[in-house]
Amino acid sequence: MIAGIIGATGYSGAELVRILSGHPKIEKLLLSSVSFEGQKIEDIYPNFLGRVSNALLKAEEVIASSDVVFGALPHAVGESFAAACVERKKPYIDLSADFRFDDDEETYSAWYGKPYKFPELHKISVYGLPELNRQKIKSLAGSGAVVIGNPGCYPTCALLGAFPALAKGLACTDNPVIINAITGISGGGREPSRSFHYPECADSVAPYKVASHRHAPEITRNFTAMAGLADGKTPPVIFTPHLAPLNRGILSSIYIPLVSAWRVKPDNSMMPPSKEIEAKTDEIRKLYEDFYKDEPFVRVLPAGLTSATNRVRQSNYCDISTHLDINGSTLIVTSAIDNMVKGASGQAVQNMNILFGFDEKAGLEAIPALF
Amino acid sequence: MIAGIIGATGYSGAELVRILSGHPKIEKLLLSSVSFEGQKIEDIYPNFLGRVSNALLKAEEVIASSDVVFGALPHAVGESFAAACVERKKPYIDLSADFRFDDDEETYSAWYGKPYKFPELHKISVYGLPELNRQKIKSLAGSGAVVIGNPGCYPTCALLGAFPALAKGLACTDNPVIINAITGISGGGREPSRSFHYPECADSVAPYKVASHRHAPEITRNFTAMAGLADGKTPPVIFTPHLAPLNRGILSSIYIPLVSAWRVKPDNSMMPPSKEIEAKTDEIRKLYEDFYKDEPFVRVLPAGLTSATNRVRQSNYCDISTHLDINGSTLIVTSAIDNMVKGASGQAVQNMNILFGFDEKAGLEAIPALF
Amino acid sequence: MIAGIIGATGYSGAELVRILSGHPKIEKLLLSSVSFEGQKIEDIYPNFLGRVSNALLKAEEVIASSDVVFGALPHAVGESFAAACVERKKPYIDLSADFRFDDDEETYSAWYGKPYKFPELHKISVYGLPELNRQKIKSLAGSGAVVIGNPGCYPTCALLGAFPALAKGLACTDNPVIINAITGISGGGREPSRSFHYPECADSVAPYKVASHRHAPEITRNFTAMAGLADGKTPPVIFTPHLAPLNRGILSSIYIPLVSAWRVKPDNSMMPPSKEIEAKTDEIRKLYEDFYKDEPFVRVLPAGLTSATNRVRQSNYCDISTHLDINGSTLIVTSAIDNMVKGASGQAVQNMNILFGFDEKAGLEAIPALF
Amino acid sequence: MIAGIIGATGYSGAELVRILSGHPKIEKLLLSSVSFEGQKIEDIYPNFLGRVSNALLKAEEVIASSDVVFGALPHAVGESFAAACVERKKPYIDLSADFRFDDDEETYSAWYGKPYKFPELHKISVYGLPELNRQKIKSLAGSGAVVIGNPGCYPTCALLGAFPALAKGLACTDNPVIINAITGISGGGREPSRSFHYPECADSVAPYKVASHRHAPEITRNFTAMAGLADGKTPPVIFTPHLAPLNRGILSSIYIPLVSAWRVKPDNSMMPPSKEIEAKTDEIRKLYEDFYKDEPFVRVLPAGLTSATNRVRQSNYCDISTHLDINGSTLIVTSAIDNMVKGASGQAVQNMNILFGFDEKAGLEAIPALF
Repeated sequence: MIAGIIGATGYSGAELVRILSGHPKIEKLLLSSVSFEGQKIEDIYPNFLGRVSNALLKAEEVIASSDVVFGALPHAVGESFAAACVERKKPYIDLSADFRFDDDEETYSAWYGKPYKFPELHKISVYGLPELNRQKIKSLAGSGAVVIGNPGCYPTCALLGAFPALAKGLACTDNPVIINAITGISGGGREPSRSFHYPECADSVAPYKVASHRHAPEITRNFTAMAGLADGKTPPVIFTPHLAPLNRGILSSIYIPLVSAWRVKPDNSMMPPSKEIEAKTDEIRKLYEDFYKDEPFVRVLPAGLTSATNRVRQSNYCDISTHLDINGSTLIVTSAIDNMVKGASGQAVQNMNILFGFDEKAGLEAIPALF
Repeated sequence: MIAGIIGATGYSGAELVRILSGHPKIEKLLLSSVSFEGQKIEDIYPNFLGRVSNALLKAEEVIASSDVVFGALPHAVGESFAAACVERKKPYIDLSADFRFDDDEETYSAWYGKPYKFPELHKISVYGLPELNRQKIKSLAGSGAVVIGNPGCYPTCALLGAFPALAKGLACTDNPVIINAITGISGGGREPSRSFHYPECADSVAPYKVASHRHAPEITRNFTAMAGLADGKTPPVIFTPHLAPLNRGILSSIYIPLVSAWRVKPDNSMMPPSKEIEAKTDEIRKLYEDFYKDEPFVRVLPAGLTSATNRVRQSNYCDISTHLDINGSTLIVTSAIDNMVKGASGQAVQNMNILFGFDEKAGLEAIPALF
Repeated sequence: MIAGIIGATGYSGAELVRILSGHPKIEKLLLSSVSFEGQKIEDIYPNFLGRVSNALLKAEEVIASSDVVFGALPHAVGESFAAACVERKKPYIDLSADFRFDDDEETYSAWYGKPYKFPELHKISVYGLPELNRQKIKSLAGSGAVVIGNPGCYPTCALLGAFPALAKGLACTDNPVIINAITGISGGGREPSRSFHYPECADSVAPYKVASHRHAPEITRNFTAMAGLADGKTPPVIFTPHLAPLNRGILSSIYIPLVSAWRVKPDNSMMPPSKEIEAKTDEIRKLYEDFYKDEPFVRVLPAGLTSATNRVRQSNYCDISTHLDINGSTLIVTSAIDNMVKGASGQAVQNMNILFGFDEKAGLEAIPALF
Repeated sequence: MIAGIIGATGYSGAELVRILSGHPKIEKLLLSSVSFEGQKIEDIYPNFLGRVSNALLKAEEVIASSDVVFGALPHAVGESFAAACVERKKPYIDLSADFRFDDDEETYSAWYGKPYKFPELHKISVYGLPELNRQKIKSLAGSGAVVIGNPGCYPTCALLGAFPALAKGLACTDNPVIINAITGISGGGREPSRSFHYPECADSVAPYKVASHRHAPEITRNFTAMAGLADGKTPPVIFTPHLAPLNRGILSSIYIPLVSAWRVKPDNSMMPPSKEIEAKTDEIRKLYEDFYKDEPFVRVLPAGLTSATNRVRQSNYCDISTHLDINGSTLIVTSAIDNMVKGASGQAVQNMNILFGFDEKAGLEAIPALF
């Protein structure tokens, strides 16, 4: 099979190149780049030297000769490529935000500053989070028109962490679910800027876009989508991203207020965790393990472990640990992914695998190194 | 004046050496170390070479000849030194956890695993957070018996971030205040261990001791102490520390549920922050600015800035930014300190300055470099 | 085929686990660890969770049931395992220094502080640098007794950089070849110690063991081994290792004084590189390209590129760039490897592949990511 | 005294602001910036918030009202400011490369690509390396026209490391002195670019501008200037800079071939350092100690220590260690500075102190922290 990548020289494009080069079903890669057309990918990424020497073509050439097309482009650029692919009946997997909001143009345009150009595409597109929409993605197989909107990196990490609690009715919807996320610098992309200039972000940690990051509405709408909540309501979402000096990784600490049935009343909140709290913690962990027992890329950690980004680095895993607060009122979930893999290009390949009926793990079997 | 440091070769001890060496009122430093007695401090810390060549003495010698004594020791080691100082009427400033709980021996011993050896000392000791207890510390001046319990690094950062909201009755006490904190590796001290072994903590971020860190009760009890809350109650506290690959710094993101009077009802929580929310945000920032207007080491950041650890590195500042969530229900405060300075040795010197009537900023005037 | 790893829980052992788990010819791994016997490898390395769950056995069990045995042990521990393997006619690939000096026990014992226990093993052992000894390693196939001494990380990087210049008679042997190497912290192994304690090695760079590192004699003896030098002599070697804050990687800058035939006399050494120097630089690069044209893991970089450790991270590549100094007298070679892969476990697998007649690249085809 | 800084918003400008703000003789700072005129310095560098709130003025205003002017500008921009200062008899200390070559316009223009605009200024300017030219700088005091060319960061580090060996005739001039230097990312300045983009330089080490960096001729010419060599000749210089993931610091490893009188002939170069070599090492260290015994900012390290950048961070120190190679033929000197302090702004302040007859250490007394 031939896979095409439009926008191959950005970070998520290059990560697609790396992953797809080792994919057992992909015989050939076609790459395109507006900025570097005519050069080879290994000229731009010398880490590929001698391994991926593909020339950078025009997008049209890529679309014309590919069996599946990945769009790894800035927001608001990919829609017309999606349209071109749909017209030619070639599945299009989009890594930008353009197809993450289905037909909710109002929300999309409020955050991304532009209307849909091809509204009809957003009626057929599917939000490509396999743990939520695997069946929907599968059902697209053979369909004449496939657009998959690959989720944002933060939403992927947050949603996987919250999913079981929401779906099983643990979350009290009166109070907000708080998602405190920390990410590495590759999330900012390939373009140099002050925020990602080494001396200004190394050896430092800082929040950014507090109460104003555009991944917040993407999380909120999928909280609703994924939760068959006991009372049919969705809790409000508070999302705060932070930047830390690492290359890759997202670590989300998710605070989910519990419905009273799942709470443990502490005798004294000044004391270390009670036995009752430990027992309830085990119960919740079990629920999470059950929930994800058939998922190939979600690892619910055993008691005693918490998530860490270095254990999922360069892999498609999402590691999750669950904890009950001393006060017994709040579930604390920690969730870790590699923002470039499960948070972007790996998940896009996982979506391709599902769509084409390949082994879902194909091309994604790298075992993470600790360092 | 002569200052003594017991435990001078640990990280907070060495940081005291560095700060006090530049203090205009300290003529002489006396240093003690059990592990390195007989050596010079510059042998252990070659960064001090040619600048601080003091020999490492016995603790008794240090106490005998000092006008003020700092204890920079592991927990449960300092009490007897405190007793020795009190007996000789020498002020003792303790950097361990031993004097952070006043006479609440139950809580202390539950978390630190041992009873008080000198219970009477804990009746006279003062919790040394100047922004809370400046008057109490001042009033000790000339007293025959002074023990100051220097606060923990995380509590300092969290308390300063939450103080105005608690004191002014903004916080709704029905729901927990959530403190999500990220710290650098120096917080783990000088002793090598797997958690702080470079290859296992570099390029990674991870939470630890979720729902079980012993700074949680220290934060909780001072929430009560510092808050003249509208309804006289204290909100529950949830505290989650994280480790990130930086040398110094704590960044706390603090989520404070607001009482209804301070809330803004959003029309649509899927939309970017409304004008109403921005207006309320300004109002809260103003309240914070007012609250801290006379504090020499708290900087409430102007609109558009969020806290970052590199802007306070090697300084005694606490930088604070305030934000109102999109939902209008929760105040998000970000608070940054250098864990070794405002979170430990700098604050200890600030306490000394207050106690002795020195300029509170003496020895602490370093302007932070950005990198 | 079944592969056994003795010392599976050290860093190079764990890296062997990771690489061999993806090796197409290895059906089963048997792991042993003295420190953690009875536990599972995923308990020690949670990054392996759900992927490598092998129990940690006794060394004897591993040897008994394996077709090839890797020893990833501290120096002076592996000899008896080598003997046990030789006795049972199982190939033994040693990652310690024990078999890097052939029968030169004098040099080995002077630097490693102990005599050989099984001198006869050192008569049959082969130094496992494929680019030097591929034929020798191949010729061991089917032999009843195979011991391969996997090279040190620094020697691998230095030797590959110097090899063509030495073998082709470019190096003047009157003056020393200077190898200035910079390595990441994983080279220090898994055991925590002050040198590798995050706050003391992060954000800093420093040489260590200047003029006294035990990789120096290993480099020197292989300079002789590998060089069919014009005049039959070997230049003296100066080797200086440095520690830099990275997880993986070695970057060697190698200064090779040229014989007069290869020198370019500059008109004025204060001026930027002359055209003559540029021409000679091209000539030397060509010579290097020729020399390595059939090597699967050596990449001679095109003009304009210099080696960088992030381009070879987690791969078995050695990247090499060549430069002629402004003065025209000295060849400067820069050489980069991943110390854990080409510098240790990857090279050990490469040796196994050669020995067993597998595709030399089997299990080692990971394309390096840039970050 | 009033000090003016032209180019206050670049990294070395901001570092001057930080250092001069704590200088006991500077009552007022006047700052200028073309890019940010009209704003305040604390708007650009929020680390200065509440501490340095000076408005950014026009360069003319700064020159008009200052007693001394620092130019912290890109190359080829400062000459006209120097001319303006000289005209008004105000000392001008230049941190660019413009005044580092005296009247050797040929070399300067070959490397920096432009001729001198004010050749006469280069006849009166002095190269501001205090350890070489302290008397010359002093003698400018009261002179009507003062231009000091502050040395480059790499040359400062290399020259201080080589100075005693060159001046005392240890260096054999037939073979090159090799300077292998590693620097942190702040050396690249404030402007974001791919080379300094976090994901592409973190966790990696790489040489750059091998055999073509423009600090090479600056080093060479000062080797000649500083060396009263036995035979009156200067050895050739080879200079290779490397980038490592740290914020600040330069570590130079300097390889100086010894004249035969200083060599030790080894019996066997495969053996660890002989007693003879250790004795000669001590002799050379003593010579270095003697040489620098009155220098306030050079620390020759005791036996057993090697230089490390974290021990000089944020200080004006240059730490030096000396070693004799196993072969006995080559002196290895390691030299560490903070590139922003001794390598730029600190040294500029040191020059000001000398020129004005202040305590040479004024404003530069910060004790380095280890982390």
